[in-house]
Amino acid sequence: MKVALVGLGRMGAAIAGRILEGGFDLVVHNRSTEKAAGLAEAGARVAGSVAEACAGRDVVITMVADDGALGAVAYGAGGLCASLPAGAVHLVMGTHGVAALGALEEAHRRAGQQLVAAPVLGRPDAAAAGELGIVAAGPADAVARCRPLFELIGRRVFAAGERPAGAAVIKLSNNFLLGSCIEAMGEAFALARKYEVAPEVLYDVLTEGLFAAPAYKVYGRLIADEAYEPAGFAAHLGLKDATLVLAAGEAARVPLPSANTLRDRLLSAIAHGDGDKDWSVMAREQARASGLE
Amino acid sequence: MKVALVGLGRMGAAIAGRILEGGFDLVVHNRSTEKAAGLAEAGARVAGSVAEACAGRDVVITMVADDGALGAVAYGAGGLCASLPAGAVHLVMGTHGVAALGALEEAHRRAGQQLVAAPVLGRPDAAAAGELGIVAAGPADAVARCRPLFELIGRRVFAAGERPAGAAVIKLSNNFLLGSCIEAMGEAFALARKYEVAPEVLYDVLTEGLFAAPAYKVYGRLIADEAYEPAGFAAHLGLKDATLVLAAGEAARVPLPSANTLRDRLLSAIAHGDGDKDWSVMAREQARASGLE
Amino acid sequence: MKVALVGLGRMGAAIAGRILEGGFDLVVHNRSTEKAAGLAEAGARVAGSVAEACAGRDVVITMVADDGALGAVAYGAGGLCASLPAGAVHLVMGTHGVAALGALEEAHRRAGQQLVAAPVLGRPDAAAAGELGIVAAGPADAVARCRPLFELIGRRVFAAGERPAGAAVIKLSNNFLLGSCIEAMGEAFALARKYEVAPEVLYDVLTEGLFAAPAYKVYGRLIADEAYEPAGFAAHLGLKDATLVLAAGEAARVPLPSANTLRDRLLSAIAHGDGDKDWSVMAREQARASGLE
Amino acid sequence: MKVALVGLGRMGAAIAGRILEGGFDLVVHNRSTEKAAGLAEAGARVAGSVAEACAGRDVVITMVADDGALGAVAYGAGGLCASLPAGAVHLVMGTHGVAALGALEEAHRRAGQQLVAAPVLGRPDAAAAGELGIVAAGPADAVARCRPLFELIGRRVFAAGERPAGAAVIKLSNNFLLGSCIEAMGEAFALARKYEVAPEVLYDVLTEGLFAAPAYKVYGRLIADEAYEPAGFAAHLGLKDATLVLAAGEAARVPLPSANTLRDRLLSAIAHGDGDKDWSVMAREQARASGLE
Repeated sequence: MKVALVGLGRMGAAIAGRILEGGFDLVVHNRSTEKAAGLAEAGARVAGSVAEACAGRDVVITMVADDGALGAVAYGAGGLCASLPAGAVHLVMGTHGVAALGALEEAHRRAGQQLVAAPVLGRPDAAAAGELGIVAAGPADAVARCRPLFELIGRRVFAAGERPAGAAVIKLSNNFLLGSCIEAMGEAFALARKYEVAPEVLYDVLTEGLFAAPAYKVYGRLIADEAYEPAGFAAHLGLKDATLVLAAGEAARVPLPSANTLRDRLLSAIAHGDGDKDWSVMAREQARASGLE
Repeated sequence: MKVALVGLGRMGAAIAGRILEGGFDLVVHNRSTEKAAGLAEAGARVAGSVAEACAGRDVVITMVADDGALGAVAYGAGGLCASLPAGAVHLVMGTHGVAALGALEEAHRRAGQQLVAAPVLGRPDAAAAGELGIVAAGPADAVARCRPLFELIGRRVFAAGERPAGAAVIKLSNNFLLGSCIEAMGEAFALARKYEVAPEVLYDVLTEGLFAAPAYKVYGRLIADEAYEPAGFAAHLGLKDATLVLAAGEAARVPLPSANTLRDRLLSAIAHGDGDKDWSVMAREQARASGLE
Repeated sequence: MKVALVGLGRMGAAIAGRILEGGFDLVVHNRSTEKAAGLAEAGARVAGSVAEACAGRDVVITMVADDGALGAVAYGAGGLCASLPAGAVHLVMGTHGVAALGALEEAHRRAGQQLVAAPVLGRPDAAAAGELGIVAAGPADAVARCRPLFELIGRRVFAAGERPAGAAVIKLSNNFLLGSCIEAMGEAFALARKYEVAPEVLYDVLTEGLFAAPAYKVYGRLIADEAYEPAGFAAHLGLKDATLVLAAGEAARVPLPSANTLRDRLLSAIAHGDGDKDWSVMAREQARASGLE
Repeated sequence: MKVALVGLGRMGAAIAGRILEGGFDLVVHNRSTEKAAGLAEAGARVAGSVAEACAGRDVVITMVADDGALGAVAYGAGGLCASLPAGAVHLVMGTHGVAALGALEEAHRRAGQQLVAAPVLGRPDAAAAGELGIVAAGPADAVARCRPLFELIGRRVFAAGERPAGAAVIKLSNNFLLGSCIEAMGEAFALARKYEVAPEVLYDVLTEGLFAAPAYKVYGRLIADEAYEPAGFAAHLGLKDATLVLAAGEAARVPLPSANTLRDRLLSAIAHGDGDKDWSVMAREQARASGLE
């Protein structure tokens, strides 16, 4: 199988490295070329354009920042839709909105290509270790063709059906639930502080009991310690995902009041200059709204 | 140490049984007397009134349903404040509001008694097994006097400071975070259903990853299966706790928007006749609001 | 008709003055007696206790601050329920919660008395001028007996049915809609400021068009001018009413999300020290949440 | 002054008619040509394309349905940016989002043209009668050039500054406040119904007092009568505007919780099949959420 990968940010590069280790024929492309150097040494061919990266490939992976970047590599004269061979698969591994994926699905269909959405759960180091969670959706045969790649980078594939948007909804839901858990913890920690109970007490109660899970342990720790820097996942990225899940809700006529609360908290945090801090800074914003700062 | 326990619901009875097993001198009292029969056989003395239960006791535990019931046993001619010996401890183990506890703290102080609030985390069978979590707050010496009792029924005591209201805030926060997690899951599962992704996929993604904890496993299961009966914890009880945490927020000037969302969802569920179902029925209400039912 | 009035705050005193001008036999009572002096000069008899005020009266009006004060004058040995003649009417003109009114209705019924709730719309000077709006609810014959009094102080009576709680719901709804209009204006004015449009432009668009009404003219003016002092109606009083309308919603299983937003904004404003400012200070709180202050 | 108008829906046609009556040289264009027939009879020249409509014009008005339609006529080879003479003004009179206007402002600037945004307040018959409210923003000289046109169709121009987005924010805020007033009324009417008070009572209290304005009179009437058809302004159009104002808030970091509530209510109404009904159908949705339907 001939593979290409467009978008060599930290996650894209980690996935590319893993694919090379798996012995695949890989072409890589990135807007700024310096990021490709290490991969070239490891055996990747570096393409100078998206079109060149697509030529003759069976599967082209994209891992780009947002819907705008996805449109920029997908559409137009030199884009994936125009450049991919008929029958090839565009494997989108970034986190994108349902509208962008729906439009892209249709564009590839018209061009005789297939779209698989497979957003990932985990950080770049998990990719490098082959430990990502992968939520995959698309035509069954196309998803099957991608499976050897999934096995290289992931510990488990969650099959989310035939429509690429479905995979996005699951990924966005996961992030949304994380954001909601942070928001609710922020509220509860502010309440505890107002009643002069040490944050540690609430942290222990939660993480020893019903909430003995990474979401609460990791983010509860950051909140209890008010340790919002450096950012693991910045507030402005959280806002991007909150907006995407709300747009998915709007398109499907699903009100998501918890996502509204999340979004508003992030907006206020960013308005107060905390956009580059970890999104657990929502708890500081809640403290502000409670007169604690 | 001479102990009394007022309120022999399922949790009260379980605690009483455990205290008897621990070899303590125990007097019990309940409004309706038939509940005391089994405990009498196990060695408890049954008192005919609250006042009688209080006579000569070092610690009197109350485990009653709500603030109204607490007021009924605490105040007035035959109540705890009037009947407890000076220096004795009133150990409140039910879940109560901060205002009720604040008023009671003051009333006991004036009567030369002490108030400890120690709401519990866990169900009656955990009490019977000595496996409860206990969040205790009150004057340090009074909490220390209760410790032998805590050791009988609990696996761990979380010390929440000197003010009884602090323990209530921690317990209410724990329930509030659980309700918020159910609400947010309800939203996410409705979204997944609208995008025709099987609930099982979302369930797996959550409980395998960031949310591998009882709250998500237990309640996610109920939501995925739409199994809202029988109720583990009924919607109308959830509403009671949501109202209490919002009142705690109001008294301390802490806005709790996630609790508002929780409360509104419960209100709608109850308005639709689901008040006696498990409070995970919030997810059905979300489905209704999304046009899914 | 023999009338008494308990509670001589500014509104109570204005109503009492009007009743005296109407030639009625009036007894007045207030916890602190100095407020009654002027009314005594105008012909009122001053009672030293609630019980004394009730003796032989056909209608006893109460105009007290909140549910706690209402309970204090209504219940107990010297309260209205114990002191009013059988067949007499307790005319509650303050703004109270539905639970307090429901309990009081039942207590009076058992004592062979009747309860009419008639909260007023307007300020004390409107009462003095006979220009109040009056929302009246209670048994039809009891409301009819109060009508001569309503005609003295009001320009119009809105008949809200047989249950006193109904009148409270209408009055609370009016205040709730006012609070919601202030909240929404606060949001819109913050948005305009962020886009560097002068507040005056938004003010003009609103008050010239769809919103040419006192609520928008008066409060829009305060917001545009950021003139939150002196308080016409203080934020902490707004919070009291927001809490009452939410309690009415909870009792009837009606979610009121706009009231939640209102309540949260007031809580944050009060947390930031603005509780004694006019409740239009919600707009400043919104500005804070938007990073504008 | 040579004028063109693109977009002959009901509002566009009314404005075109008025401009012709004012004696201006007018070219009109619409995607479907039949709409232009009446205007041709009244003296307009009908252009076959946007580019043709732009040729040699001083001011080109667009009145199109949404941001997508605006982009379609503005960009690309035959669009306004490519076709307008240097120095000409693009006068956008539809309701558009701040992002679309910001991008368009920049595109016109680069092409040596000017953008004025002037969304209107009122219905097509108000346009025909010269009675619209007009919120205008853009470079002062460009706005001044449009003034003769404004005088034909409007009773008043509200000057919203130099940035076109500012005019959009004011128009969107007006609609947002209207939606919020409908939402809050829906909540209050549901509450009154649950307490068995006739809707007419609440209607009278509101519209006689603080809320004696068209927004409350018109929409309160529809809600009291549950008269949601025919639609004056359909729920799905309300959703479009709610989404636009939320996007404006997001871009400027202004949380708008009242707009969230509005949006969620509209989403649920649409999910229940009421998207084509008048947006006051929000009150029916609130009734549903309260268990009343």
